[in-house]
Amino acid sequence: MSATLDLAIDLISRPSVTPLDEGCQQLLADRLAPLGFVAEHLRFGDVDNIWLRRGTTSPVFCFAGHTDVVPTGPLDAWDSPPFQPEIRDGMLYGRGAADMKGSIAAFTIACETFVRENPDHQGSIAFLITSDEEGPSINGTVKVVEVLEQRNEKIDWCLVGEPSSTCCVGDVVKNGRRGSLNGVLTVIGQQGHVAYPHLADNPIHRAAPALAELVSIEWDKGNEFFPPTSFQISNIKGGTGANNVIPGTLTVEFNFRFSTQQTEMGLREQVEAIFNRHGFGYELKWTLSGNPFLTPRGDLVTASVAAIQAVQGVDTELSTAGGTSDGRFIAPTGAQVMELGPVNKTIHKLNECVAAADLEALAIIYQKILEHLLPPPSG
Amino acid sequence: MSATLDLAIDLISRPSVTPLDEGCQQLLADRLAPLGFVAEHLRFGDVDNIWLRRGTTSPVFCFAGHTDVVPTGPLDAWDSPPFQPEIRDGMLYGRGAADMKGSIAAFTIACETFVRENPDHQGSIAFLITSDEEGPSINGTVKVVEVLEQRNEKIDWCLVGEPSSTCCVGDVVKNGRRGSLNGVLTVIGQQGHVAYPHLADNPIHRAAPALAELVSIEWDKGNEFFPPTSFQISNIKGGTGANNVIPGTLTVEFNFRFSTQQTEMGLREQVEAIFNRHGFGYELKWTLSGNPFLTPRGDLVTASVAAIQAVQGVDTELSTAGGTSDGRFIAPTGAQVMELGPVNKTIHKLNECVAAADLEALAIIYQKILEHLLPPPSG
Repeated sequence: MSATLDLAIDLISRPSVTPLDEGCQQLLADRLAPLGFVAEHLRFGDVDNIWLRRGTTSPVFCFAGHTDVVPTGPLDAWDSPPFQPEIRDGMLYGRGAADMKGSIAAFTIACETFVRENPDHQGSIAFLITSDEEGPSINGTVKVVEVLEQRNEKIDWCLVGEPSSTCCVGDVVKNGRRGSLNGVLTVIGQQGHVAYPHLADNPIHRAAPALAELVSIEWDKGNEFFPPTSFQISNIKGGTGANNVIPGTLTVEFNFRFSTQQTEMGLREQVEAIFNRHGFGYELKWTLSGNPFLTPRGDLVTASVAAIQAVQGVDTELSTAGGTSDGRFIAPTGAQVMELGPVNKTIHKLNECVAAADLEALAIIYQKILEHLLPPPSG
Repeated sequence: MSATLDLAIDLISRPSVTPLDEGCQQLLADRLAPLGFVAEHLRFGDVDNIWLRRGTTSPVFCFAGHTDVVPTGPLDAWDSPPFQPEIRDGMLYGRGAADMKGSIAAFTIACETFVRENPDHQGSIAFLITSDEEGPSINGTVKVVEVLEQRNEKIDWCLVGEPSSTCCVGDVVKNGRRGSLNGVLTVIGQQGHVAYPHLADNPIHRAAPALAELVSIEWDKGNEFFPPTSFQISNIKGGTGANNVIPGTLTVEFNFRFSTQQTEMGLREQVEAIFNRHGFGYELKWTLSGNPFLTPRGDLVTASVAAIQAVQGVDTELSTAGGTSDGRFIAPTGAQVMELGPVNKTIHKLNECVAAADLEALAIIYQKILEHLLPPPSG
């Protein structure tokens, strides 16, 4: 069995459901110490994080990822136990196989090969690994980045191992992500009997025209890198359950996925202007999950696309679609951030799996990226 | 203590929460038998009903009402136990004092006095009493009316003892009621992730413009007898609770209170035309609680207004506002139907009460109405 597969199996065997790490990070530290990586354990609250670095000079290439996994769902619905990884028909099955213990194993093997062949590479190689990516993401990557920023330790290139691929490894990399902004609207009415509507003030009726307006807006057309900004109402609730009572309040939860054509404050102002114009009483709470970020074609993207072409023979699509990732915490430091990992078809699902051959390919792609960005000193 | 108050206290002492009667109807039968009323017990399901009639000829004057009461709510929140009636400062306290055991007592005393003084009155006097007015209203008045219709037994005038009065007895009588039509709309969408809206179909977004249109419609301006038709959304619910999931369905419950300017089918067609025009998938269930009815000024209203004026010295307002009552089941038979009862300020509330003097006044008003409509044969 290959070294990559071996390590992936060791990692998957540990039931590290968020926020648990179950020794995965120590395993990496032990594995990378002989290569000259210095480990710094950074525990915040109940979350284990680790910062590993080989070298003290710039530029810094960082592999980023997470050892935590999402819950398994019903165990008996899996074909094999989720924390007893199993290879069937060339596929490695287990929770975290694709998201993202397979990538972490490939990071490690890529480094082993690269350092053995290039012991005197330029700059530094680092690992930023959290166990809080699938959870609230409060005590994970964001806190480690704060520590680095405080001591002015910079990441130049950050490769996040999230499963970016759609059909085969490398067909899609994410070179940015949309922003995500949540709002919770409470419309304040006046409860009453449906037979006496003049004594009540129906918050559903008050809100309906404003909601109709919101859902009809074209916020932007997106741009070269981003799909158009999208507004979606995820939850709406009003009513006592009785069919003869006008409710006193209505609650509406909504989310923006927004392109770099928008800003958080710009969206908030547009929405509030609509609610104000419709003239009802309301409360509105905003939560920013992350601003949009973009790594335009540059060193990191170019090296990655070339490595994928060399190993896989496929053209790579640069995408900014899909959900959020911890890349949103690293991009604001000025780093180039890109996501490149295995096929995401089965992530968060029963019988999560990854092709064993894909992990081998990933390890080689990662190694080639290192070779391109951190070559031996010339001369 | 007066005979009316005495009987009211006896009735209120019986904890006849819907659908229980707790012997109230038998008490009436026993009390009215000496006057020549023949009792017919009509039990449907778990509901006791009674039809009492004195006389075999037309016209038929019917007192209608119910012996069931709504639940008490927390017992220790009452100043005196709800089923241990108590008089304090001239007010009779107890569950059902105003809605509507006080009226039933007044019906009975009015009949005793009237029959004693007019043993040979024209026509017939009847009582239609159910114990299912405050509940589902399925095995109550509507079933008794079916029995009467089957044997072609007609009611000419029906006085429902519901608490119609606002400030003092007789200031308002209800000579009709709006119709009530319920709809439950389920909008069919497609669940998905908010980050991939093109793979989902948000039912809240689909419905919003249609709901905005519905709440903006002026259905009619009402007419001489009815306030304008009113549309109210009572409940709306969509969403999984998660803020990153587009829900698959949205449920909206709404109610029309409609004037005689509308019909059930007309309203249904208008609403369905709007949903169809907006082009989303939906299911829609309709339930008619009752058609509107109206008893224009005629024998019953004239006699009642005159009796109120004579006893109370107040002008009476004819109203069709407010909730539904069992009058909606009797009106379609062709009977004139009117509601006249005590002040409704405390009904369904803690410390329900009625002025003892108001029950005396009601008994005399009811008696005078009988005198006017069922005089002794001339000659």
